[in-house]
Amino acid sequence: MIASSNAGAEKEIEDPVEQMLKKTGCIELHYQVECIAEHQDWRKCQNEVKNCKMVIVVRSDLFMGKGKTAAQCAHAALECCRQTFNNKKKRLMFESWLRCGQPKIVVKIPNEEELLILADKAERAGLITAIIKDAGITQLKPGTVTVVGIGPGSNETIDSLTSKLRLL
Amino acid sequence: MIASSNAGAEKEIEDPVEQMLKKTGCIELHYQVECIAEHQDWRKCQNEVKNCKMVIVVRSDLFMGKGKTAAQCAHAALECCRQTFNNKKKRLMFESWLRCGQPKIVVKIPNEEELLILADKAERAGLITAIIKDAGITQLKPGTVTVVGIGPGSNETIDSLTSKLRLL
Repeated sequence: MIASSNAGAEKEIEDPVEQMLKKTGCIELHYQVECIAEHQDWRKCQNEVKNCKMVIVVRSDLFMGKGKTAAQCAHAALECCRQTFNNKKKRLMFESWLRCGQPKIVVKIPNEEELLILADKAERAGLITAIIKDAGITQLKPGTVTVVGIGPGSNETIDSLTSKLRLL
Repeated sequence: MIASSNAGAEKEIEDPVEQMLKKTGCIELHYQVECIAEHQDWRKCQNEVKNCKMVIVVRSDLFMGKGKTAAQCAHAALECCRQTFNNKKKRLMFESWLRCGQPKIVVKIPNEEELLILADKAERAGLITAIIKDAGITQLKPGTVTVVGIGPGSNETIDSLTSKLRLL
């Protein structure tokens, strides 16, 4: 899945914009943000060309223990990752994020309602979004929404939705 | 990466054992364990044909907070997942695990030395193993070993190494 260099090279031959960007040395920067797919020019997307991150948002009203919380967050990170498998733009963002050291921030939100509103906003903003429901074998009722994973995506877009949430 | 059905179908045409197993309705079971690759007969691997899981082992001597722990565990789960991208047998185990609801267990271990010994045993047992070192931007020194992810793998193999560790 990660080995996309050949596919990329084929596309560059077909696409004169990508050929030109490769010559300027800016092709990686070009691929970092989805904004560029729309504008076809990375210079129009300076606000978007920032480092990227993943934010995992945990419900604080469930009082989950440390292990339970960790397992739910791991689940969210994996589901976000899986969403990048069959989408070229998302995969490129995922690869950029891996190169940055895959930063993950874990924050808290007071309840399910606020979590679902946030998840909806994230999806509307075009961000990778994964809502996790617990299987309910231990501690929680089956189907309880526990966390939402957002990203990887550009810091700026994610911050616009999550910067007011406090670290867990 | 997940869309392996076509590749599998091509192989079945070439491999009479797999053709036969498909007819019996046992092909998925057949693929669940690496043992079968050796024996070419799932009936010889009954001890291995069990549900699978991932265990994430957290150092308790670092006294990481809930958010820090969750981020490290998410990192471990993703690294384990990435190891399955380019390995057919590991990928099949990963897919079985996804179908089981991707169970993850988070346990604790007293210190780095014991964690590294466990990781070494897991690797020698042929399990997917990912040792995570913290970037050290907050709380910990750069390069501190924080957690190890083991699996997805068969319950029996993983339990033989981790069953004595307590839940976090």
